[in-house]
Amino acid sequence: MDDEWQAERDWPLLATGLAGRLRRDCMAQWLGFVRHPFVRGIADGTLPPEAFRNFLIQDYLYLIQYARACALAVYKADTVAGMRHAAGLMSGILDTELAMHVGYCRTWGIEEAALEQAEESLELLAYSRFILDRAQAGDLLDLLVTMAPCLIGYAEVGARLHASPLTRREGNPYWSWIALYGGEEYTQLVEDGIRQLDALATRYGAQARYPTLLRAFATAVRLETAFWGTGRSA
Amino acid sequence: MDDEWQAERDWPLLATGLAGRLRRDCMAQWLGFVRHPFVRGIADGTLPPEAFRNFLIQDYLYLIQYARACALAVYKADTVAGMRHAAGLMSGILDTELAMHVGYCRTWGIEEAALEQAEESLELLAYSRFILDRAQAGDLLDLLVTMAPCLIGYAEVGARLHASPLTRREGNPYWSWIALYGGEEYTQLVEDGIRQLDALATRYGAQARYPTLLRAFATAVRLETAFWGTGRSA
Amino acid sequence: MDDEWQAERDWPLLATGLAGRLRRDCMAQWLGFVRHPFVRGIADGTLPPEAFRNFLIQDYLYLIQYARACALAVYKADTVAGMRHAAGLMSGILDTELAMHVGYCRTWGIEEAALEQAEESLELLAYSRFILDRAQAGDLLDLLVTMAPCLIGYAEVGARLHASPLTRREGNPYWSWIALYGGEEYTQLVEDGIRQLDALATRYGAQARYPTLLRAFATAVRLETAFWGTGRSA
Amino acid sequence: MDDEWQAERDWPLLATGLAGRLRRDCMAQWLGFVRHPFVRGIADGTLPPEAFRNFLIQDYLYLIQYARACALAVYKADTVAGMRHAAGLMSGILDTELAMHVGYCRTWGIEEAALEQAEESLELLAYSRFILDRAQAGDLLDLLVTMAPCLIGYAEVGARLHASPLTRREGNPYWSWIALYGGEEYTQLVEDGIRQLDALATRYGAQARYPTLLRAFATAVRLETAFWGTGRSA
Repeated sequence: MDDEWQAERDWPLLATGLAGRLRRDCMAQWLGFVRHPFVRGIADGTLPPEAFRNFLIQDYLYLIQYARACALAVYKADTVAGMRHAAGLMSGILDTELAMHVGYCRTWGIEEAALEQAEESLELLAYSRFILDRAQAGDLLDLLVTMAPCLIGYAEVGARLHASPLTRREGNPYWSWIALYGGEEYTQLVEDGIRQLDALATRYGAQARYPTLLRAFATAVRLETAFWGTGRSA
Repeated sequence: MDDEWQAERDWPLLATGLAGRLRRDCMAQWLGFVRHPFVRGIADGTLPPEAFRNFLIQDYLYLIQYARACALAVYKADTVAGMRHAAGLMSGILDTELAMHVGYCRTWGIEEAALEQAEESLELLAYSRFILDRAQAGDLLDLLVTMAPCLIGYAEVGARLHASPLTRREGNPYWSWIALYGGEEYTQLVEDGIRQLDALATRYGAQARYPTLLRAFATAVRLETAFWGTGRSA
Repeated sequence: MDDEWQAERDWPLLATGLAGRLRRDCMAQWLGFVRHPFVRGIADGTLPPEAFRNFLIQDYLYLIQYARACALAVYKADTVAGMRHAAGLMSGILDTELAMHVGYCRTWGIEEAALEQAEESLELLAYSRFILDRAQAGDLLDLLVTMAPCLIGYAEVGARLHASPLTRREGNPYWSWIALYGGEEYTQLVEDGIRQLDALATRYGAQARYPTLLRAFATAVRLETAFWGTGRSA
Repeated sequence: MDDEWQAERDWPLLATGLAGRLRRDCMAQWLGFVRHPFVRGIADGTLPPEAFRNFLIQDYLYLIQYARACALAVYKADTVAGMRHAAGLMSGILDTELAMHVGYCRTWGIEEAALEQAEESLELLAYSRFILDRAQAGDLLDLLVTMAPCLIGYAEVGARLHASPLTRREGNPYWSWIALYGGEEYTQLVEDGIRQLDALATRYGAQARYPTLLRAFATAVRLETAFWGTGRSA
């Protein structure tokens, strides 16, 4: 079993570079995030639907805040290429992902009106506003580092569950979610993001700033982990 | 009993003005905040010391974030007088309150090093970063409205417990906390803040913006309420 | 002659609403902006090409800063629809306008490398950073009001010159510039922006905040006017 | 003569550290700033009083914006000590320097009302808003580097003129200005600021970020230089 769960060590892109180093240096917390009971419940289909519905609602609200963080990345980028990269992520959310999310939620019986009227949970507020505060208080590197756990984590979870023989495919109501985050398209998007961050790292002095960056990354992982359980307090 | 607990309706300063209106218009949540079990436990001395210690540690970390919000109020003020008012609040925290808090914590067996090494709780992150995001995304009025529940709430709790015959004085380990927030000096500070907010309200179009302001105020009350229990997740 | 120059009073969209009121209430400065010698030189083709080239270079750099201001509008919007509107403006610049501008500059003998290496002029720094500071210090209304003179002014200048019998068409090297800003597509974009601002005005309390808004608008008009002459200090 | 003007190379604090390196690496522009005709006119008393009065008025308005930048430094600092340092600078301006400046202006026949009603010049807008935008877009190091030319420059000009045998003392209406900026107290303040910046540099990766930092520093020097002549456009 353990061998299977260690598949995440094999993502070559994370063997080098800043993103990989940050992830390795808080590996205990990281595993608590990507191997969370919520994730196992998705893998074998035993997660209570109500917990997933609450998660989906908060995830919709989270996407909106993530788009705001991308907007700050556009504002903070110091090259036109950097502005375009962040603008692409932002438009991806506003023009495509939000509508897809609404459609997906409908398959779970959640109407758009319910998404719009939902109250932000404590976990969502903590996580999203922590990112936005790092975004405003720091520079582009601080921002991208704090956004990285979300970016990397979902792709890692998706890829691992998608590839694992232990994941239940037939009759698993969560298989479409796994297929989305484990799919080619999402993986591509995330690998672009990781490369972008690694490329930025040198120019922004990541080496010397590493302790501060790691602290922010670790807090984001902690908040991302709490977010799986966002259903409880909703 | 009910009569006693309604003392908060008698604060004349809150009979008129924006701050009073906001408080009245989410009275159910407001009472959940100022009459929280944590507050009752302080009033009669039955609150477990461990819960109070956790609260004190997070409250120290909160003060630092509150000072950052005051700094944004200086940045956002559009008159020198407004800058000075916010700067006064900020210096009060950095020059006086933090040191007092450190001293007070020591009487509860919490060393300064423990304060500095403590991890920010989920409740603290949610509350403080929500304020800071409102501060950056909105204007000075948005900021002061979001900071208001903390300002008003502690003075109201302090004043009520301080005046109430039901509050235990002798042998109540929390009496000094009550005396601080129910004292003349703190009340003065808060009344200044309320007047400042009310004066700003007209010039910043609070009437027309009321629904948005109320929503932010209500969220802050919700997060302030959750903050009493910050000990649990620490 | 005077009759002709008063054509700008006939834009029906500006007869009502916040944008129109702001423009009317600083009409003397406004006319100094839209009837600037630079504009007359464009109309009759007598503007020295060197002044126009310097203007084009700075205008390219200005577009980048304007995109940053749009990014802040996405961050500051409090509805998804508002985020999408601002994101649309931003993407318009990053995905289309910048490339068009580069192409247009090439027809004037300005290579892309020259655009990228150009130093920001005093006028550009003053104008763009004033907008960005209003954007961060205030709320979405403050931001959109400060951006409005640029939005409205270029469309007004373009429309007026495009329609005027006094404008030289044949052999006027600036006719393509006039055709762009006086064209259907740009006018549509601007009218959308004006409607967006007017719709926002009520909800954000523009009436009560009018003196502050007018002050910022007037400063932006002053800086926009100085920007015509940006060539001199480049 | 040249020997005398090279006294600025002797400030030992600037022989090492980030601030000194930045200053050395744009020495041509730096000398254009600290040896500006305005400075020579102050040294020998030949500067037209009207130019000085315009400068004083804009300098008052500049102080207010500088205090706003200090407020952002409090918000951006990641230690309580760092917050206190920036808060000290900010309070120094709001509680002391502004009032001193008002008093000094009165000796030049400028009433407080004139200061408050004065319009911000193009040079002031460009310089102060450039600083504030760097402050918001970047992190604390970006902010402090952009503020450094003002901090260092005035002390350097003051110290040099104060010490130079060529400076006219008797009957020079500008001697009190020289005495202020060349005095012990101001020098102390500035040396603290330089040490603060140098201490921060390592932790924030200044080495790797040097090209970006130098670009911002050089732009600030350029804008500071233009600010001497702010009288012309007022």
